[in-house]
Amino acid sequence: MDSSWIPSANDPDGDFPISNLPFCVVQNTESDPQIGVVIGDQVLNLARLAEAITLPCADDLKHSSLNSLMGQGEQKNLVLRAELTRLLEDRPSRLRDQPELYSRVLRPLKECQLGMPVQVGDFTDFYSSLYHATNVGAMFRPDQPLLPNYKHLPIGYHGRASSVVASPSPIRRPCGQTAPKPPNEFPSFGPSERLDYELELGILMGQGNEWGQSIALNEAWSHVFGFCLLNDWSARDIQKWEYQPLGPFLAKSFATSISPLVVPAAALEPFRTRRFERDAEDPSLLSYLEDPQDASAGGLDIQMEVYLTSEKMRQAELEPFKVSHGSYADMYWTVGQLVTHHASNGCNLRPGDLLGSGTVSGRERISRGCLLERNWRGDFENPVSGSQRTPLELPTGEKRDFLEDGDEVTLTAYCEKDGAARIGFGSCVGKIVGSSSS
Amino acid sequence: MDSSWIPSANDPDGDFPISNLPFCVVQNTESDPQIGVVIGDQVLNLARLAEAITLPCADDLKHSSLNSLMGQGEQKNLVLRAELTRLLEDRPSRLRDQPELYSRVLRPLKECQLGMPVQVGDFTDFYSSLYHATNVGAMFRPDQPLLPNYKHLPIGYHGRASSVVASPSPIRRPCGQTAPKPPNEFPSFGPSERLDYELELGILMGQGNEWGQSIALNEAWSHVFGFCLLNDWSARDIQKWEYQPLGPFLAKSFATSISPLVVPAAALEPFRTRRFERDAEDPSLLSYLEDPQDASAGGLDIQMEVYLTSEKMRQAELEPFKVSHGSYADMYWTVGQLVTHHASNGCNLRPGDLLGSGTVSGRERISRGCLLERNWRGDFENPVSGSQRTPLELPTGEKRDFLEDGDEVTLTAYCEKDGAARIGFGSCVGKIVGSSSS
Repeated sequence: MDSSWIPSANDPDGDFPISNLPFCVVQNTESDPQIGVVIGDQVLNLARLAEAITLPCADDLKHSSLNSLMGQGEQKNLVLRAELTRLLEDRPSRLRDQPELYSRVLRPLKECQLGMPVQVGDFTDFYSSLYHATNVGAMFRPDQPLLPNYKHLPIGYHGRASSVVASPSPIRRPCGQTAPKPPNEFPSFGPSERLDYELELGILMGQGNEWGQSIALNEAWSHVFGFCLLNDWSARDIQKWEYQPLGPFLAKSFATSISPLVVPAAALEPFRTRRFERDAEDPSLLSYLEDPQDASAGGLDIQMEVYLTSEKMRQAELEPFKVSHGSYADMYWTVGQLVTHHASNGCNLRPGDLLGSGTVSGRERISRGCLLERNWRGDFENPVSGSQRTPLELPTGEKRDFLEDGDEVTLTAYCEKDGAARIGFGSCVGKIVGSSSS
Repeated sequence: MDSSWIPSANDPDGDFPISNLPFCVVQNTESDPQIGVVIGDQVLNLARLAEAITLPCADDLKHSSLNSLMGQGEQKNLVLRAELTRLLEDRPSRLRDQPELYSRVLRPLKECQLGMPVQVGDFTDFYSSLYHATNVGAMFRPDQPLLPNYKHLPIGYHGRASSVVASPSPIRRPCGQTAPKPPNEFPSFGPSERLDYELELGILMGQGNEWGQSIALNEAWSHVFGFCLLNDWSARDIQKWEYQPLGPFLAKSFATSISPLVVPAAALEPFRTRRFERDAEDPSLLSYLEDPQDASAGGLDIQMEVYLTSEKMRQAELEPFKVSHGSYADMYWTVGQLVTHHASNGCNLRPGDLLGSGTVSGRERISRGCLLERNWRGDFENPVSGSQRTPLELPTGEKRDFLEDGDEVTLTAYCEKDGAARIGFGSCVGKIVGSSSS
């Protein structure tokens, strides 16, 4: 494995070795936000570095978001990545050998405030876990958990871009309309009582496609710039009342959190794996969604976790409690299939557009990526007979059907395998604050 | 009625009197796009005018889209409007009395190429016609045309911003997956065979709300900058297969057309009217959606029309054929209710965000704003018994279930009443071109 002259990058348990180099945007007090990459426990300020030495994509590095760099496309982005690797690996370089320079462009990560890495043009949310779709479907439609279209196309819907915020923005409990609760005849309006998180992978687009053009599956990966963590906060009670017939709206649009680090697609190459194995009786795929390379390497072996910390836990100085642990390799639809399907009607994807994978859930209870599923709370007032309705129990003895004010949700993810350095995603954090009317 | 020193603005049948002054963005060959207003048959170039004389919001007028101006808020926008009115009304002014100046800043509308007036941050599409919802519901769910939530809240969903384009962009027939057609067991992928238009009003936001804050109904109107025409192109066959359970996605995201003119909210003041009369047995509204001013003046008396011209009609030099004529006063939910509901969960609306009203349909067949409804083609293969399935017949004798390649759809709208000058919206045009794979 390659090593860096920055010692913390060589820690085998660290998240940010030289083979990762996630991008970020640093909120400086002394200047506009600036683009950087994380290496070990340091942030390398690329805006300042580009002023001092010649770098590929130098103009794009002076922007206050990654969008311009993303729009340069995979080849130019790889040239930049190769140059950054040369500067940081443990051999003579224009950076290592200039202490005056590197002391100006490196700053400890813990001293940096990171902000939104991109301006999200459009946000699309998919539903690509078969387990999640089946679980949620079973709660709402016990006779027909999975709809007939599910295994033929990646189901998705348009989300709200304006309220995508960077971790650790606090999340205000939303108000909204909820269904009449018998004996009441009328719906009511007030703070959501069924606030949930959803563990998702965020896919950030690189070079886009022209309006009216599609993206072939064997080229889809080259249009992906990188990945982040995404928490698709969901108000289940608002969702249940509003979502027919046009889908989720205000139940989701109050907030979506993303992590501030963008792991480059190239950093995940060693962790690409066979796509999720379809059952023998699953339908064959239409040709635009089928490709041998996608079948053999369309999956991503990313371990993804959710932690919860309540106010009481913080007071007792308890560690965050692990609520969920799943693998992105369990997703039914590949990242490439999401991209190709999205553009198959000629819809133009733009650099910085954000695709959410949908809730990452696996077969076991511990791998269910939201409380609705984990606690089996779909049919709130009338639990399905035989269901496994089980509130989450925290180390303090507190129980959770859904999130309460003061709860902090932390998403993390990492990739590990023999022969490759560990790749971490950092974290995506959000703490629930009370509704302004509550 | 006020008159202008520009003679064409005083034509009683004209669309652009001095009381209208719709904004636009002119695509010049000699410079970046520039902001203007339409007066009579002329475009007044505000970017150039602001260089010559002092104007309110002068900096915003030098941008290449209206977003910055929209963000200034209602009060400043009204000050600009008052100043433009003073310059254009039929009395001495800094413009009328300077032929050298006005010859530089006025150009015939027919010589101007108009482009996208705004950068759309987010596009939300509503469903606010009770008639449309009931008609479409009856086709898909004969037992329960209207879902229980409909009269309690404005149903809406997030649309796609990247593919919102300015009239008269040609519209490429999208490809997509459609449901298995017996005896076929599998879905197929190819050009949509059920391409439709939807006649809608576009609502363009002015000053936004902070993330986490809501907008009271009695302030909602002040957050609206203006209005345009909107064609929510829809592939019904793609929609039918993909839309469960998360709503329309690729069936809509291939294209949405808007007119290049933005009629200021202030120009429509004389045409505000009582909101649509709810039935006696309709539920009472939750308090956040109820307001006396909205009840008495939340409606908009806008006449809206759809015309169709086929390739054969063009060859025979026939006039566009009127397919639909409805009134926006028939909409169940008011513009204010859409804005207030949208922000009720703290979702931040930004200047230039676009809300679609949903298809504008009334009680009669002629007032149905899409072919699906007009031709009663919901259950494509198995028409509901007793349904009035009737293809549209064009003057050439051609029949239309849905749109064919070469068909051009034109939306128009205007307001008329005694004692007020006619206000026109211009037109929103799109011609269907064949799919790249057809």
